[in-house]
Amino acid sequence: MTRFVLGQNQYGKAENRVVKITRDGDTHHIKDLNVSVALSGDMEDVHRSGSNANVLPTDTTKNTVFAFAKLHGIRSAEDLGVRLARHFVDGNEPIHRARIRVEEYGWERIATAKDGAHSFVRKGQETRVAQITYDGHGIQVLSGFKDLTVLNSTDSEFFGYLKDKYTTLREDHDRILATTVSTWWRHNWDGVDQHAPDWDRSYDGVREHALQAFAETYSYSLQQTLFEMGVRVLDSRDEVDEIRFSMPNKHHFRSDLSPFGIDNEAKDGAVYYAADRPYGLIEATVLRDGADQLIPVDMTNL
Amino acid sequence: MTRFVLGQNQYGKAENRVVKITRDGDTHHIKDLNVSVALSGDMEDVHRSGSNANVLPTDTTKNTVFAFAKLHGIRSAEDLGVRLARHFVDGNEPIHRARIRVEEYGWERIATAKDGAHSFVRKGQETRVAQITYDGHGIQVLSGFKDLTVLNSTDSEFFGYLKDKYTTLREDHDRILATTVSTWWRHNWDGVDQHAPDWDRSYDGVREHALQAFAETYSYSLQQTLFEMGVRVLDSRDEVDEIRFSMPNKHHFRSDLSPFGIDNEAKDGAVYYAADRPYGLIEATVLRDGADQLIPVDMTNL
Amino acid sequence: MTRFVLGQNQYGKAENRVVKITRDGDTHHIKDLNVSVALSGDMEDVHRSGSNANVLPTDTTKNTVFAFAKLHGIRSAEDLGVRLARHFVDGNEPIHRARIRVEEYGWERIATAKDGAHSFVRKGQETRVAQITYDGHGIQVLSGFKDLTVLNSTDSEFFGYLKDKYTTLREDHDRILATTVSTWWRHNWDGVDQHAPDWDRSYDGVREHALQAFAETYSYSLQQTLFEMGVRVLDSRDEVDEIRFSMPNKHHFRSDLSPFGIDNEAKDGAVYYAADRPYGLIEATVLRDGADQLIPVDMTNL
Amino acid sequence: MTRFVLGQNQYGKAENRVVKITRDGDTHHIKDLNVSVALSGDMEDVHRSGSNANVLPTDTTKNTVFAFAKLHGIRSAEDLGVRLARHFVDGNEPIHRARIRVEEYGWERIATAKDGAHSFVRKGQETRVAQITYDGHGIQVLSGFKDLTVLNSTDSEFFGYLKDKYTTLREDHDRILATTVSTWWRHNWDGVDQHAPDWDRSYDGVREHALQAFAETYSYSLQQTLFEMGVRVLDSRDEVDEIRFSMPNKHHFRSDLSPFGIDNEAKDGAVYYAADRPYGLIEATVLRDGADQLIPVDMTNL
Repeated sequence: MTRFVLGQNQYGKAENRVVKITRDGDTHHIKDLNVSVALSGDMEDVHRSGSNANVLPTDTTKNTVFAFAKLHGIRSAEDLGVRLARHFVDGNEPIHRARIRVEEYGWERIATAKDGAHSFVRKGQETRVAQITYDGHGIQVLSGFKDLTVLNSTDSEFFGYLKDKYTTLREDHDRILATTVSTWWRHNWDGVDQHAPDWDRSYDGVREHALQAFAETYSYSLQQTLFEMGVRVLDSRDEVDEIRFSMPNKHHFRSDLSPFGIDNEAKDGAVYYAADRPYGLIEATVLRDGADQLIPVDMTNL
Repeated sequence: MTRFVLGQNQYGKAENRVVKITRDGDTHHIKDLNVSVALSGDMEDVHRSGSNANVLPTDTTKNTVFAFAKLHGIRSAEDLGVRLARHFVDGNEPIHRARIRVEEYGWERIATAKDGAHSFVRKGQETRVAQITYDGHGIQVLSGFKDLTVLNSTDSEFFGYLKDKYTTLREDHDRILATTVSTWWRHNWDGVDQHAPDWDRSYDGVREHALQAFAETYSYSLQQTLFEMGVRVLDSRDEVDEIRFSMPNKHHFRSDLSPFGIDNEAKDGAVYYAADRPYGLIEATVLRDGADQLIPVDMTNL
Repeated sequence: MTRFVLGQNQYGKAENRVVKITRDGDTHHIKDLNVSVALSGDMEDVHRSGSNANVLPTDTTKNTVFAFAKLHGIRSAEDLGVRLARHFVDGNEPIHRARIRVEEYGWERIATAKDGAHSFVRKGQETRVAQITYDGHGIQVLSGFKDLTVLNSTDSEFFGYLKDKYTTLREDHDRILATTVSTWWRHNWDGVDQHAPDWDRSYDGVREHALQAFAETYSYSLQQTLFEMGVRVLDSRDEVDEIRFSMPNKHHFRSDLSPFGIDNEAKDGAVYYAADRPYGLIEATVLRDGADQLIPVDMTNL
Repeated sequence: MTRFVLGQNQYGKAENRVVKITRDGDTHHIKDLNVSVALSGDMEDVHRSGSNANVLPTDTTKNTVFAFAKLHGIRSAEDLGVRLARHFVDGNEPIHRARIRVEEYGWERIATAKDGAHSFVRKGQETRVAQITYDGHGIQVLSGFKDLTVLNSTDSEFFGYLKDKYTTLREDHDRILATTVSTWWRHNWDGVDQHAPDWDRSYDGVREHALQAFAETYSYSLQQTLFEMGVRVLDSRDEVDEIRFSMPNKHHFRSDLSPFGIDNEAKDGAVYYAADRPYGLIEATVLRDGADQLIPVDMTNL
C-alpha cells in the first residue's frame, strides 16, 4: 500500500447555519452565517486504517461553531473565523491547520409603527464571504462577495479585436455591459504584528469602490473594467494586497426587429434579449506591486 | 381514438427574458422581465393529427413579446401582459384564451460621481410576478411576489395546540418567526368597466402593508400572522378582492448549549440553528366578503 | 373584521426526508421519500385569534410520518400516503381533509464481489411523485413523475402553422425533438369499493408506455406526441382515468456553420446548440371518455 | 498605475452546450457536452487600456467549439478538448495557454418496437467532467465526475475519536454511510510521448473501481473509504497518477421513536431522517508514489 501516498486532505463540518440575535433592550440585531470548517493535520491513520484517534468529529466542530457564536458573539464573519481557526489548531495537537469559510446573508429592518425594532427583511443582494486560514503561526484572511449583479446600459464598446477564420462577431459601439461579480480579496494582516482591520468597514469600502469603478469606467472590454475595479480597491484600501474577480459577461443581445419594420437602436432605448448560456467569463487577479499572488485561481467559483 | 378526450391544454413560449432600456437624455431606465405565453383554443387537430394549421408558433409569440416591448414600452408587467393577451386572442381566430405570466427583477441605481445615470445593481430581493388572462371578454389580473424572506426575532409564541400520541413538541413563548413570502392577489378590475389600477402604486402598497402586518403582529401562530397580512392588504387596497399566501415556517431552533454549561435563552439574545427541511408550510386565501375565490390553490408554488 | 373571509387554507410539515431500510438477511432494501403533509379543517380560530386548540402541530405530523414508516414499512409512496391521510382525518375531529404529497428517489444496487447486498447508487433519473387526498369519505390518488428528459434525433417535423406579421420561423422537416416530461395521472380507485392497484406495477407500466409512445411517434408537433403518450397510457392501464403532461420543447438549434464553409445538415449528423430559454411549453390533459377532469392545471409545475 | 500588477488572468466563452448526432444508417448516436474555454497570454493591454488587439473574442471561441464538433466529431470530451486547446494556442500568437473544461451528460436508448434507434432518455446519474490544459508544450488531462450519490446501509462504524469539551457525539457501530462523490483524476499522458489513453475505457474503469471500493470497504471512517477508493483506482488504472475526492458525509440520522414506544434499531431495519445541512465534508488526494500533486485543492468544488 506504500506505493500510494496520501496528499492534501481536510475534513470538517460544512454549512453550519448559525443565526445570532443580540438584544439591546427592545432593539435587536441579527447576524446570519453559514460556517464551514476544514481541518488538516496528522491524518495518515484515519485514511489508512480507519483509526479515528486523531479525528475530532465533524459533529464537535459544529458544536464549537454554535458555542463560540454564543460565547463571543458574532462581531463579524472574519472575527468569528479567526477565533475558531485558532481554537481548533491551538487546542488539538493532531490538528495543524484550520480553514474556516463563512457566507453571510444581510438583513435590513422593516420600518414599522410598533415599539422596538426586531423585524427584518433579508437584503437578498450579494452574499458576503470570508475565509480564515491558520497553521499555528500566521493567519490569512480572505474576504469577498458573490452574486452581485450589475449593469451599465451604455458607455461600453467592443471592437478592434483579433480575428481568425471562426470570427463572425460584429463590432459594437454601444452595448449593455452586465455581470455578476464574484470576488475575493486578501488582507495583509497576518494575525500577529498589526491590529486587525475593521472588517465591516473594510468590506463596505471595497464593495463601494468596486461598484463605483464598474459604473464610472467607460469600457472597451470587460477585462478593462475588471482591472479598473481592482486598481480602485487596492488604491483606496491599504489593508488589501490582492484581489481576484470572476465576472461572467452576461450578454444582452439587441433584438432584431427589422423583419417587423421596427427600429431597435441602442441610442433610442432598445429592447434586449438577456441570454443565459453560453457567456463570456473573465477572471483576473490584481496585486499590489511586490505582493505575493496567493488567492487560488479556482476559488472564485465557490 | 374517440374513447379518449382532450382536456385543458395550452401552449406558448415560456421564459422570454426581455430587457428594455428607456433613455431620458443621460438618464436611463430599465425594465427586466421574464415573460411566458400560454395560448388555448381550437386545438383538437394539432393534438390528434399533428396539423399545425391553428397553431401560431411559439417562436412567433416570442417575437411578439420583444416587438411589443419596443412598440409600447414596458410601463409595467401588467400593462404589457394585458396588451399581449388581447393581441393574441383578438388577432387570431383559433386562439380563444391567452394567459401571460411575468416575473420582474428589480434594479436600483449605483450612486456615482459621473454624469448621467445608467448604472444599475440588481436589487435581489423579492421577484415581482403577474398573470394576465383574457378570454375575448374579460381580463383577469393577478399580481404578486415571491422569495421575500422576513424574520421577527421575538413577539412570537406557540402553545395550546392539539396533542395526540405523536406530539412531542414543547411550547415556546419566545421564538423566532421567519418565513419566505410567496403571494398572489387578484384585482377586481375586469378590463372593461373601470380604469385600470396604477399597477406600480398598487404593488408598492400591497408589499408595504403585508410587510408591516408581518412586523406588527404579536403572533401566536403563523396562520394568525398570515391572515392579518391578508386583512391589512384588503383593508387598505380597494382594487384587490382576494389574496393568497404560501408561507413556509423557516424554523430557527435554539441551540442546546447546556452540555457545555452555556445558557442560551431567547431573552438574553440566543444562538439559533436555521434548519432547511422539513419546514412547516402555511397556505391560505383571504377574501373580501362576497368575492369569488379564484386564485388556484397550487399557484403559490410557481 | 367580518368584512374579510378566510378561504381555502391548509398547513402541515413539508419535505420530511424519510429513508427506510428493510433487512432481509444480508440483503437490504431501501425506500427514499420526501413526504409533505397538508391538513385542512376547522381552522377559523387559529387564523383570526391565534388559538391553536384545533391545530395539530406540524411537528406532530412529522413525527407521524417517521413512526408510520417504521410501523407499516414503506410498501410504496401511495400506500404510505393513504395510511397517513386516513390517520390524520379519522383521528382528529377538527381535521377534515388531508393531502399527502410524496417524492420518491430511486436507487439501484452496486454490483460487488462481497457477500450481502447493501450498497446502492442513486438512479438519478426521474423523480416519482404521488399525491393522496382524503376528506373522510373517498380517497383520490394521483401518481406521476418529473424531470425525465427524452430526445428523438429525427422523425420530427414542424410545418404548416398559422402565420401572422410576427412569424419568422422557417419550416423544419428533420429536427430534434427533446423534452423533460412532468406528468400526473389519476387512478380511478376511490379507496372504498375496489382493491387498490398494485402501485409499483402501475407506475412501471405508465412510464414504459409513455416513453415508448414518445419514441415511436413520428411527430408533426409536440402536442401530437403528448396526446399520443396520453392515449397510449389510458389504453393500456385500466386503473388510470386521466393524465396530464407538462412538456417543455427543449430547443436544439442546428449550428449555422456556413460562414466557415461547413455543411451541417441533419441528414449527415449535425451539431446542435442546446438552448436554455426561452422554450416552448406544451401542456395538456388526456381523459378517458366520460371521466371528470380533476387534475389541477397548475399541478405539473410542482 | 504601475503600483498595481496584473496577476493570473483568463477569459473565454463558458458553457457552450453542444450536442452532436452521428448517424449510422437508422442508428443514431448522441454526444451531449457543455464546453468552457479559458485562454491566457499576452493580455496586459486589454486590462490596462481596453485594447482588444490580442483578444480573440469569446464569441469566436464559441464558434470554434461548434465547428470542431462537426469537423472532427466528438469521440470523447477529452479528445475534443485536446483539439481545441491546441488550436487556440498554436493558432494565435498572443494566446499562450488554453484550458478547456467539459461536462458530459449521458444518455441511454429507449427500447422500442420501431425500426431504427434514435430515441434516447437522459441517464441522469453522474455528470462526467474533463479539463484539458495546453501551454504550447505539454498537455495535462484531468478527468472526473460529480454528483454520483452512493449509500451503504450497513458495514459502517464511527468510534474511538478524539474528544474535547465540545464533543457530544455518541459512537455508532452500525450506521448508514452515504455520500455524493465528486472526483478528478490526472492522467500521466503528456500529449507528447505516449499514445493517448482510451478515454472512455479509462473513465468506465475508474468509475467502476471507485464504486466497488465504496461498496466493499467495511468502513470505520469516510476518510478510510475515500482513501481505499483512491488506492483501488490507482492500483488498477496505470494511466492515472493522482486522484482527488470531495465527499460530503450525507448524514442519515436514525429517528428517535422511543417516545412512541417504537424500537428503531439498525439491525431490525430502521427509519432514518436524511439531513441536508450541516454535513461532514471529507476531501483528499491520493497519489502514486513519486507523482506530483497537481490537482488544485478547490477544484472538486466546481
